[in-house]
Amino acid sequence: MKALVYLGPNKKSLEDRPKPVITAPTDAIVKVTRTTICGTDLHILKGDVPTCTPGRILGHEGVGIVDAVGSAVTAFKAGDPVLISCVSACGKCTNCRRQMYSHCSTGGWILGNSIDGTQAEFVRIPHADMSLYPIPADADEEALVMLSDILPTALECGVLNGRVQPGGTVAIVGAGPIGLAALLTAKFYTPAEIIMIDLDDGRLAMAKRFGATATINSGDGKAADAVMKLTAGLGVDTAIEAVGVPATFELCQQIVAAGGTLANIGVHGVKVDLHLEKLWDRNISITTRLVDTVSTPMLLKTLCSHKLDPTPLITHRFKLAQILDAYETFAHAAETHALKVFIEA
Amino acid sequence: MKALVYLGPNKKSLEDRPKPVITAPTDAIVKVTRTTICGTDLHILKGDVPTCTPGRILGHEGVGIVDAVGSAVTAFKAGDPVLISCVSACGKCTNCRRQMYSHCSTGGWILGNSIDGTQAEFVRIPHADMSLYPIPADADEEALVMLSDILPTALECGVLNGRVQPGGTVAIVGAGPIGLAALLTAKFYTPAEIIMIDLDDGRLAMAKRFGATATINSGDGKAADAVMKLTAGLGVDTAIEAVGVPATFELCQQIVAAGGTLANIGVHGVKVDLHLEKLWDRNISITTRLVDTVSTPMLLKTLCSHKLDPTPLITHRFKLAQILDAYETFAHAAETHALKVFIEA
Amino acid sequence: MKALVYLGPNKKSLEDRPKPVITAPTDAIVKVTRTTICGTDLHILKGDVPTCTPGRILGHEGVGIVDAVGSAVTAFKAGDPVLISCVSACGKCTNCRRQMYSHCSTGGWILGNSIDGTQAEFVRIPHADMSLYPIPADADEEALVMLSDILPTALECGVLNGRVQPGGTVAIVGAGPIGLAALLTAKFYTPAEIIMIDLDDGRLAMAKRFGATATINSGDGKAADAVMKLTAGLGVDTAIEAVGVPATFELCQQIVAAGGTLANIGVHGVKVDLHLEKLWDRNISITTRLVDTVSTPMLLKTLCSHKLDPTPLITHRFKLAQILDAYETFAHAAETHALKVFIEA
Amino acid sequence: MKALVYLGPNKKSLEDRPKPVITAPTDAIVKVTRTTICGTDLHILKGDVPTCTPGRILGHEGVGIVDAVGSAVTAFKAGDPVLISCVSACGKCTNCRRQMYSHCSTGGWILGNSIDGTQAEFVRIPHADMSLYPIPADADEEALVMLSDILPTALECGVLNGRVQPGGTVAIVGAGPIGLAALLTAKFYTPAEIIMIDLDDGRLAMAKRFGATATINSGDGKAADAVMKLTAGLGVDTAIEAVGVPATFELCQQIVAAGGTLANIGVHGVKVDLHLEKLWDRNISITTRLVDTVSTPMLLKTLCSHKLDPTPLITHRFKLAQILDAYETFAHAAETHALKVFIEA
Repeated sequence: MKALVYLGPNKKSLEDRPKPVITAPTDAIVKVTRTTICGTDLHILKGDVPTCTPGRILGHEGVGIVDAVGSAVTAFKAGDPVLISCVSACGKCTNCRRQMYSHCSTGGWILGNSIDGTQAEFVRIPHADMSLYPIPADADEEALVMLSDILPTALECGVLNGRVQPGGTVAIVGAGPIGLAALLTAKFYTPAEIIMIDLDDGRLAMAKRFGATATINSGDGKAADAVMKLTAGLGVDTAIEAVGVPATFELCQQIVAAGGTLANIGVHGVKVDLHLEKLWDRNISITTRLVDTVSTPMLLKTLCSHKLDPTPLITHRFKLAQILDAYETFAHAAETHALKVFIEA
Repeated sequence: MKALVYLGPNKKSLEDRPKPVITAPTDAIVKVTRTTICGTDLHILKGDVPTCTPGRILGHEGVGIVDAVGSAVTAFKAGDPVLISCVSACGKCTNCRRQMYSHCSTGGWILGNSIDGTQAEFVRIPHADMSLYPIPADADEEALVMLSDILPTALECGVLNGRVQPGGTVAIVGAGPIGLAALLTAKFYTPAEIIMIDLDDGRLAMAKRFGATATINSGDGKAADAVMKLTAGLGVDTAIEAVGVPATFELCQQIVAAGGTLANIGVHGVKVDLHLEKLWDRNISITTRLVDTVSTPMLLKTLCSHKLDPTPLITHRFKLAQILDAYETFAHAAETHALKVFIEA
Repeated sequence: MKALVYLGPNKKSLEDRPKPVITAPTDAIVKVTRTTICGTDLHILKGDVPTCTPGRILGHEGVGIVDAVGSAVTAFKAGDPVLISCVSACGKCTNCRRQMYSHCSTGGWILGNSIDGTQAEFVRIPHADMSLYPIPADADEEALVMLSDILPTALECGVLNGRVQPGGTVAIVGAGPIGLAALLTAKFYTPAEIIMIDLDDGRLAMAKRFGATATINSGDGKAADAVMKLTAGLGVDTAIEAVGVPATFELCQQIVAAGGTLANIGVHGVKVDLHLEKLWDRNISITTRLVDTVSTPMLLKTLCSHKLDPTPLITHRFKLAQILDAYETFAHAAETHALKVFIEA
Repeated sequence: MKALVYLGPNKKSLEDRPKPVITAPTDAIVKVTRTTICGTDLHILKGDVPTCTPGRILGHEGVGIVDAVGSAVTAFKAGDPVLISCVSACGKCTNCRRQMYSHCSTGGWILGNSIDGTQAEFVRIPHADMSLYPIPADADEEALVMLSDILPTALECGVLNGRVQPGGTVAIVGAGPIGLAALLTAKFYTPAEIIMIDLDDGRLAMAKRFGATATINSGDGKAADAVMKLTAGLGVDTAIEAVGVPATFELCQQIVAAGGTLANIGVHGVKVDLHLEKLWDRNISITTRLVDTVSTPMLLKTLCSHKLDPTPLITHRFKLAQILDAYETFAHAAETHALKVFIEA
């Protein structure tokens, strides 16, 4: 089968690989019908993710059709249309029992990382009963791909950790795909203000269309002042970091209100300064999280009841044979205005 | 009246000052019968607290007898024995309505800071109805002094923010008075392990007597390893920072388990490193807080029902006339083994 | 001044009464510019509320202009436009400190009940600092009247107690004003389904316009079956009782899902059957509540940010001189289709 | 093998039955080394539990040694000492994913109910990975038997649902085994008062030894008055119903404070009166629950760290051959003073 293979820093190719086989009774093999590229895939390609070694098929998002199941899989059978979760979970280890699937002792984020992923014709899904979701009859398959990772990540790491509340004020630093997904899911809780902050006016304009109540281009270095002006000098109840560099985390510290929450989504490669000399008495919380995908059932319900429409995030579509073009498009988002690029079988 | 007055960095004296008078209808004047010295008073004396200016009477803890009340005070009258809260709260501003009294728009921690405090014969208490508590008939007055600040601070900033739970594991970095108070109040929630970490074996021995299940002298720089050994390599569910310097905050980051909480109590004077490159995917929370004293009613109930005995924290007693000796004793705790030094009228 | 006075069961009149005066330093006198009639006022007129004795001026909702304040009122001064809360709260008693203002030891719901109310030219508001809210400059005054009682009651007793969640299923039994207010505020949390149940097709049609996803006329006695059909046999996550009679409470018990919540808003005059023989193992919660008005600040923010528009609830407008007509209109809602009838100065 | 078999209302016998075999890849067969009799077993014998049909081996508690495992069991192997949970959980259905294992679509409380149970030499455990727990090396096996059902039931249905808090007041109606287990686990949260109410002075004396702060014999019909006297007329924050008849549920309604919780543990066979005419404005919660056993890991940690000692609940020990005597002893607890009667292999 065709598969996109990581070959070491800055190297990848579309290769022929053997179709995966069932190796544990809880496995399923899924024929991938749609997948996408995540910002994390670019991190891997930079060589930033040591758990992902050369030879690995990338990709941890997608929908497909079950091709085969192991003897212990009870929830699915061949032919079932399924959503693939980016997190594999056994459901029974200590962390799974507390619903912290991200830290499953034999799972977590392993797909397209320490085991082969979804940017291929077929993928092996371990712990299939807990890591796949049946696709409701009338669901929009393209929308569903966004439930593999980006929407639960934005909701859990940003919105739920950030305790977004009706009438509250939210600032999201970073208006890329994940920041926009945070914006979409923040709206579940009807905050009074959602302020989007980015360096790219195009993305800020998009954020406005997605429902931002205000946008700030932080290029002038005065974003914190602008947020203070918008919030009567109080700062925001929830500051969501959706970039992953020290400067954006610094900005979040400057704008979080007393009693507020700084919810980190970004993948950070280096340490940051934490200004405890200013924050020790400010009654704030700072949270980090790898998505647990515990919110997937909730997201499925909001999607199927038409309370959520993530399809405007999809900007480009490619066939698997063109996946290298898809990577190019996604990697140069500033020029291509790519948000989510879709790969179809 | 006699009062301990801050005169600028490293300068203080016991002076004669006029007895305070009621300046707002919500004020009360309290005759102080017992007070104590807080670690924060030493911070002030170092010149670290810019809101506290020379000429200020220090002290924000104590019990006493109401001497006079303003026309709008309804809960107290002259002669009532009262507990003084370290936080003054109007009860009606936006922050008070969300029970974040620490950030009351006309209160917060002002006593012995931006207004005169309790290390004197009399003290003026603003917002008296919300900032004083009636003393139950049979309560231990010495124990009550610890409800002014140290116990609610330890409970709210450390134990409640740290989400201590039955069966959980707790590490408290710093076995001084506030760390020991965190230990005492952590026991409300029956954690399986309370590990105390300090540089002073004397304090660690005291911690054992207070109920620590393990103690670690961090002098050898291997405290993190020792915690990992005690927790099967997982780290602790709750790491409480009770010192306020970068090294102890660093240690807390090393020992907090995936899914755990790092609850900061310490007063920090400089920024710290936050290792987001290691923590971004660890599902942790970091909390800061100036005590709100919302837990004071709960603490009164636990004290009066004999579920809490903080009196072993009291190591020395002085008369107000000897308060300079009390400061000496408290400031040299390593030699004097002082925890809480009490000043009696 | 003119005032609507309760004269005993089924008797009321519009009378001349002396303008109220300040009797405590925490009082304010408010000139009422807009008020309304509550279903509870009809209960009083039936003689169902023993705390309300003949001679009482009715009304516990409204907006107005501060006319005078007592010496201890600090948040308001004459001339300030204010929202009047139906609950008076001292802010300092045991229950107020836990934000259960409804059970304030010297307040709670007393307005138009045990003290004179708002259906008059002027009203005395005790504990003014905690019981009035400043009106933001550009706020819609008519909308604000709905923040006195009906919206916080619907939100707190129904939606918050009922733990409405994104993707969840909600049934509201009773599509009168309070049921519709529950519908409006349930939408803050983006449930997948909001099913409205009533006997009146007109009210159900209105509910559809307000955003109900399904409506059921319970006149045929088969509402429970209909709910089960709509919820794949599971029942609803949240069942809100918004009527106050045994039959509707019974229906709520039949339709609440395992793990769900039955949130009672209705004022009940008689006991009901609780089917513990069926419910003991169903993991449900049943909640009761007199509104605490703790959500008023949140509601003000949602209103001012245009996330909430309660004005479609207003169906009729009268001058104070015509208040007896207003009562007639409101009391015969089946014919007049009245929801909220407004009384203007 | 020997097994205690239910033969229809009031009929049971110790019979020879075939040793169970693995029927699904997720099954385990466990050799039972210790089991016990639950009050629910007596309910079954009265014919009150229609899901339990004649021919059923009773028993849903116990510890044992794994005899064999199915091909999909990964957490256990033959020879492992295990704790058996009274609730079987697949871990992957909708209810299991929300940790409501009691309502697992293919599990829940089925053991000794709709499938054969533990009062036998061997038992088949479905969903073994989620329904068994490894026994720590140095754990007290007798104590562990109480973690199968009685302790998680008391903790989850009574203490956690009842939101027991430090400094709070708790009343437990019923001082039988489950009421005493609620008392033991309520102590995890350091309430100020735990009032035990029963008709049997012997059980009340036992409750005192277990840590009750007050006891009330309700035989004179004045228990509610007595509770009010003990709580300054307020009632209790948490009222735990641990009997299961209308009279005790009625008492709980009379003694629950405004803002409090009535947590039902009792198995009810008939409906009860709910006095909404008195409770509608009292801000209370009433909860029901079949134990989910989500607290089992927490209980294991408290037990292994010696924060919990349930062994005083064990009053009698029998061999499996004498299980009919054990039933007699347990069924006549008033005379035998039986709490938990143990059956050993």
